Amino acid sequence: MKNGFNTVAIVARRLTDRILESITKIDTILSGLGIQTLLEQKVLKELGLNRDNAIAARAELGGMADLVIVVGGDGSILGVSRDLAGSGVPVVGVNRGSLGFLAAISPDEIDEKFGQILSGDYSIEDHFLLEAQVFRQGDLMSSSTALNDVVVNPSSMSRMMEFDLLVNEEFVYNQKSDGIIVASPTGSTAYALSAGGPIMHPKLDALVVVPMFPHTLTSRPLVVNGDSSVTVRIIDAAEGAPQLSCDSQVNLPLQVGDNVTINKSIDPLKLLYPSGHSFYESCRSKLDWASRLGGSS
Amino acid sequence: MKNGFNTVAIVARRLTDRILESITKIDTILSGLGIQTLLEQKVLKELGLNRDNAIAARAELGGMADLVIVVGGDGSILGVSRDLAGSGVPVVGVNRGSLGFLAAISPDEIDEKFGQILSGDYSIEDHFLLEAQVFRQGDLMSSSTALNDVVVNPSSMSRMMEFDLLVNEEFVYNQKSDGIIVASPTGSTAYALSAGGPIMHPKLDALVVVPMFPHTLTSRPLVVNGDSSVTVRIIDAAEGAPQLSCDSQVNLPLQVGDNVTINKSIDPLKLLYPSGHSFYESCRSKLDWASRLGGSS
Amino acid sequence: MKNGFNTVAIVARRLTDRILESITKIDTILSGLGIQTLLEQKVLKELGLNRDNAIAARAELGGMADLVIVVGGDGSILGVSRDLAGSGVPVVGVNRGSLGFLAAISPDEIDEKFGQILSGDYSIEDHFLLEAQVFRQGDLMSSSTALNDVVVNPSSMSRMMEFDLLVNEEFVYNQKSDGIIVASPTGSTAYALSAGGPIMHPKLDALVVVPMFPHTLTSRPLVVNGDSSVTVRIIDAAEGAPQLSCDSQVNLPLQVGDNVTINKSIDPLKLLYPSGHSFYESCRSKLDWASRLGGSS
Amino acid sequence: MKNGFNTVAIVARRLTDRILESITKIDTILSGLGIQTLLEQKVLKELGLNRDNAIAARAELGGMADLVIVVGGDGSILGVSRDLAGSGVPVVGVNRGSLGFLAAISPDEIDEKFGQILSGDYSIEDHFLLEAQVFRQGDLMSSSTALNDVVVNPSSMSRMMEFDLLVNEEFVYNQKSDGIIVASPTGSTAYALSAGGPIMHPKLDALVVVPMFPHTLTSRPLVVNGDSSVTVRIIDAAEGAPQLSCDSQVNLPLQVGDNVTINKSIDPLKLLYPSGHSFYESCRSKLDWASRLGGSS
Repeated sequence: MKNGFNTVAIVARRLTDRILESITKIDTILSGLGIQTLLEQKVLKELGLNRDNAIAARAELGGMADLVIVVGGDGSILGVSRDLAGSGVPVVGVNRGSLGFLAAISPDEIDEKFGQILSGDYSIEDHFLLEAQVFRQGDLMSSSTALNDVVVNPSSMSRMMEFDLLVNEEFVYNQKSDGIIVASPTGSTAYALSAGGPIMHPKLDALVVVPMFPHTLTSRPLVVNGDSSVTVRIIDAAEGAPQLSCDSQVNLPLQVGDNVTINKSIDPLKLLYPSGHSFYESCRSKLDWASRLGGSS
Repeated sequence: MKNGFNTVAIVARRLTDRILESITKIDTILSGLGIQTLLEQKVLKELGLNRDNAIAARAELGGMADLVIVVGGDGSILGVSRDLAGSGVPVVGVNRGSLGFLAAISPDEIDEKFGQILSGDYSIEDHFLLEAQVFRQGDLMSSSTALNDVVVNPSSMSRMMEFDLLVNEEFVYNQKSDGIIVASPTGSTAYALSAGGPIMHPKLDALVVVPMFPHTLTSRPLVVNGDSSVTVRIIDAAEGAPQLSCDSQVNLPLQVGDNVTINKSIDPLKLLYPSGHSFYESCRSKLDWASRLGGSS
Repeated sequence: MKNGFNTVAIVARRLTDRILESITKIDTILSGLGIQTLLEQKVLKELGLNRDNAIAARAELGGMADLVIVVGGDGSILGVSRDLAGSGVPVVGVNRGSLGFLAAISPDEIDEKFGQILSGDYSIEDHFLLEAQVFRQGDLMSSSTALNDVVVNPSSMSRMMEFDLLVNEEFVYNQKSDGIIVASPTGSTAYALSAGGPIMHPKLDALVVVPMFPHTLTSRPLVVNGDSSVTVRIIDAAEGAPQLSCDSQVNLPLQVGDNVTINKSIDPLKLLYPSGHSFYESCRSKLDWASRLGGSS
Repeated sequence: MKNGFNTVAIVARRLTDRILESITKIDTILSGLGIQTLLEQKVLKELGLNRDNAIAARAELGGMADLVIVVGGDGSILGVSRDLAGSGVPVVGVNRGSLGFLAAISPDEIDEKFGQILSGDYSIEDHFLLEAQVFRQGDLMSSSTALNDVVVNPSSMSRMMEFDLLVNEEFVYNQKSDGIIVASPTGSTAYALSAGGPIMHPKLDALVVVPMFPHTLTSRPLVVNGDSSVTVRIIDAAEGAPQLSCDSQVNLPLQVGDNVTINKSIDPLKLLYPSGHSFYESCRSKLDWASRLGGSS
């Protein structure tokens, strides 16, 4: 009844005291409003609770809840996004301490912000995921999705690899480097930024390809349309076997000769933000941009 | 009759011997095919020719010709683009010597490539222009278009300026720097690239905002949707008066307090390329990317 | 008698209320300890004071005082450094508000830090200056010193220049760019850092040459021995006349064909710091480096 | 008698046809001049030769030869440098195909350049090595030398690590990143350059510390005196065990809590170059810097 949020799941990746405290607080607020809350088995156990309606598996989340609250920071949201994308169920994040780019609510704002959300004062942003597929001699060997980025690199560091890059089956370049990052706009403020990539507004329909320590100095981040198909063809990988990494959480093994293709996934993650959330405000806060409007000194 | 190219204008910015030679060659080929060619008065004079149908002013080009051939490199195409955008008349560039990103035909390919074009074997790419407008206390003071980039900076170097950046009227940051570059995808391989911006595929609908030597180290290139409105509000400009520069060719004076807004222009430049033209091939050639497909060594 | 500081000059570039307040505070403390203080005529006037021993000209400072206190930030110290280098008289800076790299004392530390200094608890660091000389057809046309950096660039922005770079008369490269920065270690945390240069420890005997928006992507900052002679030979300068700028404070006009040579100056600036001053602490504070020692969380 | 080169060793890391061909050519030239040549057992075998005086172990090279010729490129010289540093025996490199920064002779110059060298027309440059030591709870666990760089990073990629950086036992910063590179001037044109470090002239007495994809955007390459002691203290290393890598050839395992110290090694590598060798020429050739002196077009 509350804006359609009849059943709300509250999940977490790691269970620290602070996170358990936030879960309890949110659970109490929502239950008090007559909303059914679902907790994970591991959380119930840690809190010494006994309930009928525990969350058995994350893959079920989409069918059970109208809203999923992730407590614990951007990394935790990355994990949930792979399970929830396509379900149409929105996700909202409660960060540990400071604000994240994805987790929009800090622990001390829980009362205020959930009040706001339950009164309907929120917006939902679609964040597209990347789908990475590994082809070996034409056969699909494995695949995974990523919210932030897909990284292709040697599994051990300081080992150079060589690959061809293709976009929409057109040859772009051959490169020797430590690997390559393909990031979504959502991921452009994460690992790709450390590697020298640009910041892309979350609503931009684009992918960025960022080389990692390329041997030539002329390689630069490349931004292409979101509906592009990016292919990384492994040519050589020295001593370390190459791998594909999704959001630094899922790793798939690669071999010389494999084609990795990265496309926009059909099903987006629906991120819920309390109204007033601003991407640029997150940038100013997290990247320490000057936040003072000029002329007001 | 030849694919609709009945009247073709041939223009140039600078008249070197090599450029005049190319103009003559193209003029001879086209005339031989029964196509009416239009030359500029300055070219006719230089070549010692006398014709009725000289091009009086560039602004008329759109109404007179079905195709405009620019001889002389990317800089010359930038100049013509401001006159031709909106006319719907396509432009093709013949470079001096090496290939450019915009000028797709080298002098020694004139025979082959124009044969190809006149037989209909070409494609036309829309390249959007930027429109920059200067507002002073709400009044529009001046405006210009740019194909590559709009730069706001002090008119004398080594003079810091302070400005607020807004995108779609939302505050992004306040910055002290040497200025700011707003580039189209077309311009992303020009000045913006020197300043650390990413390469954007020409078909991407996006703008990139690149800070110039910002005082804070956390400022990074920002890529936003092509339909965004970017505003630079001049807060302070030390000793050097600020200015707005379009493609390094048109300069408009600015004052403290001015709002410069940059939007995608409605009318694109229609660039004609012989079939087979590839953006990534231009990158490989001009940026010295490894062009060897891996595995073929 | 107090560690040799019998006569102390207190100077400032700009006279804001806060700066005058700091000057008065320092003057009172020192006078109370029997130290003779020298103020500038403009300061005496502003404070409504009448004294016999005003500082007539900055160039005299070296002969009049045992210590010079600069109130007002790093920019003010840059100005004084050109007058005092070679005099052997140490300089200490009192910043406006936050700490600078050069000005080591904040206004609210004046009591504590000057107590420390006068009790002999300080160190003196030599910071070498750069000497820039302009040669035209072999003749020395002009010269200046700089503590931070020497910049050679067009006097108007967005105007490319072309130059040859030589180190110790050996050809390094020919470059088309917006100009070039030659910085001392002291200046490596100033303008050169914005342009992508490395941070150099103040005690390193080296110069860094940083290209400004070079047209080729392979140009990188170059660090050479401090006793190197760096020559910039102006080849072309488009429409804007080139210029040489020292610490963004002194500008000398240049012409095509001029040779600018930059060498380490013989006479260093002697910067006095209260003991405990740390370069890396300044970096952490001003560049926002993580200052928490790991493992202490 | 030939400038003291009575006995010359010729070594190679990999034995391709081209390399064996170059070895044979050099061996023939030197033998013809009455110089005793020493080949490795693996080379003799490959060439079907039988000699008394094979090189048993690389560690003996210093005691056996007056000059060591390395055939095969910069990577091969890195390997030999660890065995020869301290012996005082000079090394000269013959590259495969293109010139390297270390290997100064190309295969087609063998006749000319060795004629030059044997007539005494050469110079010897000292290139200092780095010595890396791993301390665990105060005990020295392992150590190695490196000519180019020492890298501390997780053994598997995409795994962040946290460390404290100290220079001369002074705390510099705490950092979360993919690791850190400490490079000599010799190594500044290798891996450190890919990671954004500056180019340092080979004669500069300095070390550069380059962060690898740091989580904060304010981290920059740091250049310190060559006699500095750089310490990397491992604070955390996520899932991947950290490691220390010397010239990408020697890997030492690390644990959380380890202190890695990097110092200039006492014994330099003595690199021999035919006269006329120029560092900047190598830069122009290998980094594709504009090599045309301005004004000569």
